[in-house]
Amino acid sequence: MTIGVCYFPEHWPREQWESDATNMAEAGIEYVRLAEFSWAVLEPERGHFEFDWLDEAIEVLGAQGLKVVLCTPTATPPKWLVDERPEILQADIDGTPRHFGSRRFYCFNSPAYREETDRIVSRLAERYGDNPHVVGWQTDNEFGCHRTVRCYCEDCSAAFSDWLAEKYDTIETLNERWGTTFWSQRYPSFEAVDPPQPTPADHHPSLLLDYYRFANDSVVDYNRLHANLLREVNDEWFVAHNFMGDFETLDAHAVADDLDLVTWDSYPTGFVQDRREDDPTLDELRAGDPDQVSMNHDLYRGTNDAPFWVMEQQPGDVNWPPTCPQPGDGAMRLWAHHATAHGADAVLYFRWRRCRGGQEQYHAGLRKHDGSADRGYHDASQAAAELDGLDVAHVDAPVALLHDYHDWWAISSQPHAPDFDYWEHLRTYYRALRARGVQVDIVHPETSLEDYALVVAPTLHLMSEERADHLSDYVSDGGHLLLGARTGYKDSYNRLPDARQPGALSNLVGATVDQHESFPASVDLSLMYDGDAYDYRTWSEWLNPDEADVVAEHTTAGVTEAKPAIIRNEARRGTVTYVGVWPEAELANTIVGDALQTAGVTSTDVLPDGLRVAERDGHVWVTNFTSDAVTLDVPQGTPCHVGESKTERNDTVDVDPFGVAVVECRVDDVAVE
Amino acid sequence: MTIGVCYFPEHWPREQWESDATNMAEAGIEYVRLAEFSWAVLEPERGHFEFDWLDEAIEVLGAQGLKVVLCTPTATPPKWLVDERPEILQADIDGTPRHFGSRRFYCFNSPAYREETDRIVSRLAERYGDNPHVVGWQTDNEFGCHRTVRCYCEDCSAAFSDWLAEKYDTIETLNERWGTTFWSQRYPSFEAVDPPQPTPADHHPSLLLDYYRFANDSVVDYNRLHANLLREVNDEWFVAHNFMGDFETLDAHAVADDLDLVTWDSYPTGFVQDRREDDPTLDELRAGDPDQVSMNHDLYRGTNDAPFWVMEQQPGDVNWPPTCPQPGDGAMRLWAHHATAHGADAVLYFRWRRCRGGQEQYHAGLRKHDGSADRGYHDASQAAAELDGLDVAHVDAPVALLHDYHDWWAISSQPHAPDFDYWEHLRTYYRALRARGVQVDIVHPETSLEDYALVVAPTLHLMSEERADHLSDYVSDGGHLLLGARTGYKDSYNRLPDARQPGALSNLVGATVDQHESFPASVDLSLMYDGDAYDYRTWSEWLNPDEADVVAEHTTAGVTEAKPAIIRNEARRGTVTYVGVWPEAELANTIVGDALQTAGVTSTDVLPDGLRVAERDGHVWVTNFTSDAVTLDVPQGTPCHVGESKTERNDTVDVDPFGVAVVECRVDDVAVE
Amino acid sequence: MTIGVCYFPEHWPREQWESDATNMAEAGIEYVRLAEFSWAVLEPERGHFEFDWLDEAIEVLGAQGLKVVLCTPTATPPKWLVDERPEILQADIDGTPRHFGSRRFYCFNSPAYREETDRIVSRLAERYGDNPHVVGWQTDNEFGCHRTVRCYCEDCSAAFSDWLAEKYDTIETLNERWGTTFWSQRYPSFEAVDPPQPTPADHHPSLLLDYYRFANDSVVDYNRLHANLLREVNDEWFVAHNFMGDFETLDAHAVADDLDLVTWDSYPTGFVQDRREDDPTLDELRAGDPDQVSMNHDLYRGTNDAPFWVMEQQPGDVNWPPTCPQPGDGAMRLWAHHATAHGADAVLYFRWRRCRGGQEQYHAGLRKHDGSADRGYHDASQAAAELDGLDVAHVDAPVALLHDYHDWWAISSQPHAPDFDYWEHLRTYYRALRARGVQVDIVHPETSLEDYALVVAPTLHLMSEERADHLSDYVSDGGHLLLGARTGYKDSYNRLPDARQPGALSNLVGATVDQHESFPASVDLSLMYDGDAYDYRTWSEWLNPDEADVVAEHTTAGVTEAKPAIIRNEARRGTVTYVGVWPEAELANTIVGDALQTAGVTSTDVLPDGLRVAERDGHVWVTNFTSDAVTLDVPQGTPCHVGESKTERNDTVDVDPFGVAVVECRVDDVAVE
Ligand SMILES: [Zn+2]
Ligand SMILES: [Zn+2]
Ligand SMILES: [Zn+2]
Repeated sequence: MTIGVCYFPEHWPREQWESDATNMAEAGIEYVRLAEFSWAVLEPERGHFEFDWLDEAIEVLGAQGLKVVLCTPTATPPKWLVDERPEILQADIDGTPRHFGSRRFYCFNSPAYREETDRIVSRLAERYGDNPHVVGWQTDNEFGCHRTVRCYCEDCSAAFSDWLAEKYDTIETLNERWGTTFWSQRYPSFEAVDPPQPTPADHHPSLLLDYYRFANDSVVDYNRLHANLLREVNDEWFVAHNFMGDFETLDAHAVADDLDLVTWDSYPTGFVQDRREDDPTLDELRAGDPDQVSMNHDLYRGTNDAPFWVMEQQPGDVNWPPTCPQPGDGAMRLWAHHATAHGADAVLYFRWRRCRGGQEQYHAGLRKHDGSADRGYHDASQAAAELDGLDVAHVDAPVALLHDYHDWWAISSQPHAPDFDYWEHLRTYYRALRARGVQVDIVHPETSLEDYALVVAPTLHLMSEERADHLSDYVSDGGHLLLGARTGYKDSYNRLPDARQPGALSNLVGATVDQHESFPASVDLSLMYDGDAYDYRTWSEWLNPDEADVVAEHTTAGVTEAKPAIIRNEARRGTVTYVGVWPEAELANTIVGDALQTAGVTSTDVLPDGLRVAERDGHVWVTNFTSDAVTLDVPQGTPCHVGESKTERNDTVDVDPFGVAVVECRVDDVAVE
Repeated sequence: MTIGVCYFPEHWPREQWESDATNMAEAGIEYVRLAEFSWAVLEPERGHFEFDWLDEAIEVLGAQGLKVVLCTPTATPPKWLVDERPEILQADIDGTPRHFGSRRFYCFNSPAYREETDRIVSRLAERYGDNPHVVGWQTDNEFGCHRTVRCYCEDCSAAFSDWLAEKYDTIETLNERWGTTFWSQRYPSFEAVDPPQPTPADHHPSLLLDYYRFANDSVVDYNRLHANLLREVNDEWFVAHNFMGDFETLDAHAVADDLDLVTWDSYPTGFVQDRREDDPTLDELRAGDPDQVSMNHDLYRGTNDAPFWVMEQQPGDVNWPPTCPQPGDGAMRLWAHHATAHGADAVLYFRWRRCRGGQEQYHAGLRKHDGSADRGYHDASQAAAELDGLDVAHVDAPVALLHDYHDWWAISSQPHAPDFDYWEHLRTYYRALRARGVQVDIVHPETSLEDYALVVAPTLHLMSEERADHLSDYVSDGGHLLLGARTGYKDSYNRLPDARQPGALSNLVGATVDQHESFPASVDLSLMYDGDAYDYRTWSEWLNPDEADVVAEHTTAGVTEAKPAIIRNEARRGTVTYVGVWPEAELANTIVGDALQTAGVTSTDVLPDGLRVAERDGHVWVTNFTSDAVTLDVPQGTPCHVGESKTERNDTVDVDPFGVAVVECRVDDVAVE
Repeated sequence: MTIGVCYFPEHWPREQWESDATNMAEAGIEYVRLAEFSWAVLEPERGHFEFDWLDEAIEVLGAQGLKVVLCTPTATPPKWLVDERPEILQADIDGTPRHFGSRRFYCFNSPAYREETDRIVSRLAERYGDNPHVVGWQTDNEFGCHRTVRCYCEDCSAAFSDWLAEKYDTIETLNERWGTTFWSQRYPSFEAVDPPQPTPADHHPSLLLDYYRFANDSVVDYNRLHANLLREVNDEWFVAHNFMGDFETLDAHAVADDLDLVTWDSYPTGFVQDRREDDPTLDELRAGDPDQVSMNHDLYRGTNDAPFWVMEQQPGDVNWPPTCPQPGDGAMRLWAHHATAHGADAVLYFRWRRCRGGQEQYHAGLRKHDGSADRGYHDASQAAAELDGLDVAHVDAPVALLHDYHDWWAISSQPHAPDFDYWEHLRTYYRALRARGVQVDIVHPETSLEDYALVVAPTLHLMSEERADHLSDYVSDGGHLLLGARTGYKDSYNRLPDARQPGALSNLVGATVDQHESFPASVDLSLMYDGDAYDYRTWSEWLNPDEADVVAEHTTAGVTEAKPAIIRNEARRGTVTYVGVWPEAELANTIVGDALQTAGVTSTDVLPDGLRVAERDGHVWVTNFTSDAVTLDVPQGTPCHVGESKTERNDTVDVDPFGVAVVECRVDDVAVE
């Protein structure tokens, strides 16, 4: 378990590099990421390459024993290239070009840009093909950031037609699968199908879903181009990409197929402000929301079922969220431990030193812009020291949470309620699992499920016979399946199935959906479950049980009242529970608690918000994202690897505000005093 | 009084058509609307027509005794046509084209599209010219939906210049009427006048108003093209169009001149969410706001002073409002009765069966997508049975509410307060009339007024001498006229009149407007009327009575205080009341109550919100849009045609939640217990 | 001290002009502004000039002894010109042209438009070169109104490249000063630098700042073109421009260098609604916020350190704010006095008569549109009579508030908190000074400071060594300097300085900024100053005192607590106070009160909101912007020039709601009873 940093030597005078490298080594840093966004310095004019500075920087770092991760610098093509080949620019949905001036303004489908990419990546790879300090590569940077997965340029229009031809073979098939008789939308040819640019009313949902798939595949292809070029030169390098948090438009499962190492960029105090429904508390502004962060850890860990890296870890205050409070004391250390608990093998802070020029001047580094140590440097050093001895195996999670990006895109194309957000809905179930200290693999629905005691599928919206069979097999083999609302609503072309919802899953569920409703937040929505009253939100279904038992009935006023809301089917060796609402937290805790018990999964009582425990290889990390100190009871004699303070005999462990403890026990051995 | 349905046989396998027709007949359905949006199936490639399926569908329906209404399918030109003649596309205000992919993306002024329209409509009309089952036609669908009345393309620019030349004859006249000396806006020629595209500040209000008139006239012309083509083939067909609810940009009075039958599309639970100022209650989310709905009934009934149809009646939950709760039990039946009470002769539910593909998958039908009966099917069947025997004459309303779309457009071009919405302001007066059970004709100001006991004109904003004379004649003949704020503020070119407001009406009113003010919602606005305090909102005028009496004074704090707010002029055989504020509901109830009394109009006491009564041809419909049951007192022995339950001797009638009663008596015979 | 009016004779029949002139003279009006927006009437077609009407209008006014100010009519080029030379149109940031139809749609950098400007201005100037009634000129109208300083057209792109070449000489210098290594933004040439059009993420802050400077300089140049042409013809004319209130994008300091007379347009009841953070009270809707208005008086007075004019004074209700209540009785008179107290020598009401046509029909004049006197006419007449005898010298302010537009632009390009508004932050300090009756010069930081007892610099964001030396000299000479948050954060290229903040000022301040934070409004932010608790908002700094004393510590919860928040350095002959927060009003009052005391500045106690006093040349104006009457204590025998009522011996003065008193004494002689 180790620590690293992202470094931009090209921003600083040559004479500073040695002391930077020394300071890194002293902090216990192992990995240094280099050369991101460096195309204009590597090739200041066409064909004129300047690699010496990078050679030298690697050498200076390598001399301190640091390992180098290089980046393909394609996120920022130089101005001379854009002026020579302006056709590489993306276009907004209304046709406005996305101009030079920031980053990610190139189109993934531009033949010109693929040519240029090939040129710069090959050249760089060859230069460092046998450099002993270079251990791997990051492709590009944060594919899709700033809403750039989906482009509406002419290259994309042509590529989309080809993609459709490949998928459907004949235009008649497309017309039939999509259902284009509606509103006279029949297409005479694949060439006639355009990207969904502005039109008076909504676009056809089947077109939208396929356009989102196509745009995603364009990025997958473009990433594969990098990976192939790098592997051709040196197949011992790892090829990685740095994904983003709570990110909708790019299918990490698909991109990961071409990667050796999945990484992501974690900025907890920004995420609570710009990609979560609830307003953040002051504690969250200081340290983030542990469940929001770890949901991404667990997602990226789940893509390739392997340890992941945090390629960029927030180092202090940052520039891009609405507001930027200082993180709590120790928060930067806390985040490194939290990532490790969820399966990270390395955490690299972004960046080494605050940059004097450009868009990120308000983004801290481990060092201030005058070169002195900033708050993050001390935290990073402490984390490095604490993690150094702690080599733990891959996380072994008892529960799978099923997630398919295509379901996300389908729901987004027809949310049918202003606040039905697919990811927030998943997070409701995820939180309930994490509140009880359960490790969760967030995986694709077609993953092998046999090792999971419990499978939670909040919204498998697009349902095929194959997928239904896969789930059915799991339950038949004794598995326990918890399904949420809007499951099985559509076929894989984003059309309604022939039969009632949940379509191909109806047999397994033993019930169908009689009606669905959505509501504004002002309406009180409630149900009765096991004799107790609970609230739900946004979405209601009236279930029509066939073989299943009704376990909750609506108490929402009016026609909804007394309709079945949750059913359970125990007809096979396992169980299936179908939840026909979006539960509020308390209801989610109860449903998930019952499911864990049925499935025999070890867990804690419901922990307070912000305090989380996670087990990895016999070690339990206790991470405190609040400003209140906490004392934990643990079995007497529990070995305590990391802990702010502890009694002599280790039967309690004190955890400071924004602090961490690592103890050797099971997760259910830990209790809050 | 009858029931119908909209049906799309082309979406379903041929083998389903017979059972569909049987199920329709069993439900008591009389009319079936067909072929809307069907161009691409009727003409899959240029000149290659496929009418067989439609012939057959009509035959299958006709065999069950069903009558067919056909549609000209021009709302959705096929993709091959758009690709051949892309010049037919509309342009947004900033020039962005409105692309293929949904509907209504064609320009009404495109010569190319008029040519194509002529071609398909003629062909269709000829095909069914002597079909015994086809009784009439709907032109296109919902002209102007999705903000498409106003286009900013080059064809429109040229057509606008021609329209202006026709209207003003010389450019000097235009410059003088508009007042283009202001800000150097003088035009050297008609060609030089452009559509109002983006400019740094506001556009000239006279240009805006004429552009809105021109755009409206373009639709009127385009509709006339359809009507003429159809009538040429068979002049026994009725020609109808389906208008929308609370719709600003298209003048239904003008379009209706070319129609035999006016119809509109009624979606009560959507309207309360997306086209009304107040947030809906749960009851309104379940059944809508009866006044909002009936205001449209009364508007469309008033266009041609004839019974109208609801061409599309909400069949259950729908796809397009922000949220979509299930309608209350019986609501679909309630809406059919409510429409009938207000003058509908037929109510067609949209649509027969929920569609599996395309944009409206979340829109219910009378049947579910798996073919089984949905909630609306039972309601529709009940309504059909109840209405079957009930043949009543045209509504005879004692009160006229004057409305001119041009006033709406003028106010919208200069609202002078963020929440001064012309239609909401009209609705304030309309509600007060309906709260007392009074039937109201919403008519154009130049309609003959002699048969009305009371005329209410909330905002006759643009005032000509002719219009003033018309109103003056009405009052001179003993009529009672209630005028609201912002009346007579402008001449018909959207300029201030020479004299003070209300301009040409000042003599009749016996007062002028000294000052006007608008206020944010945070300021308390009040006045004293007849010794009692009342609130008003948004708008205040200080009146300067000449011959008129002051009947209310402002009590709003500051300089407004003690200024005359409402005046009454009794100088002629009738009376004129001018209300210089936008009254809140209680004040509106009082003013309108006094006006009804003065005019001798029969009415009830103020009814609770959501409970409404309406008389048609000696029958009183009691419609309950709330979830509370109600008991009504009626004269002993009142015949009760429809009623959930009643005592033996019929001196009370019980009305269920979302229920209906139809009793034979006068409206003032009915009282809530 | 005098009164004037803006008049548009071309909007009215010739026969009305004489009575208009007579009515003006009777009101005591001295100046009349003419010919704004009149290009299309002066030159109805190319080369065909019609000056007769203007000759005659000037003659009619001159005959009544009125003095005429003419305008260059370039804010509204005629349609024939736009159609001939469409390249003069501005372009929006996304390339959408700004079309004809309102005003200000021309590009300042268009060579074509500069040619046309030269033509019309020369012609006009020559025509009136020796007209005895014409005393001066206004150039164009409200440069930059409707967001038009910044244009993104091709002419601007070329001109920007030239401007950069002029500034940086070599592209290497630009790359180095901006720091374009970041995100590969190195430019190969000046031609390659484009205006900041849409790009996926933020633009480079150094590019943005220079683009804002360039756009500003384009206006400065364009104004100079007018000034030079006018002065060539008659160098006794004054050349003026009418600026706007609270206006960000145009540097009035720079434009004023080419003007003889600075004027601005004051609309108090609009400003409180559309350019201030807080919602207005009813009193503010009736009369405005005196500090918001006078901050502009003091800004424009400070540009050339000379008396200014209000070129357009609100005459009653206006058309453009969200809502438009009637001003309080006397408010139009109050505003004239208030302006005079702050250094105005003339106040011209806009406009003479409400216009019947065009965009401003809802904008009052001194006369109604039917020609009768409106409320403002009586107020203006009274103000004229009262000011007539009152000839007072230039304002002599003891305190300077430093303001540099470039700091405003830099903060706006990276606010780092949604509610960090540079101008609101300045206003916090300005209010605290005005609440104590202190006159304030708002001046450029490089102004000579030696005559000021106290200098307040809320945010000198961009700091150079020269500017730091200038401030250091002031303090070394015994001056007292009060600095606010975010001072010295950047160098003049919008990059971080080498050292910590406040960069070049650190020595003078005796402290550095250790960290900064921003917060949402939901977090309680507080500190302890001199034993008392106070609130602050939005922004927090942790100060690191070197030689300075800590005078306030944060009490904000969490890691912020106990960090130094305000420091004071008394190391030289003067003092420096650095405030590391954005203070709420109470804290600002305390800090500013202490600073005034230290600097020995005469002041009142903190006055109630809305009641303000201001001294000019031995006269104290008491202006009451509230609806409550006030009684003031003054020294016995104080001469009272204007006062609604007073006791015999003048030891108290009564001030009506929205009233004024002018007494001859010192500001600290006045106290509220
Ligand atoms: Zn593209
Ligand atoms: Zn058009
Ligand atoms: Zn330009």
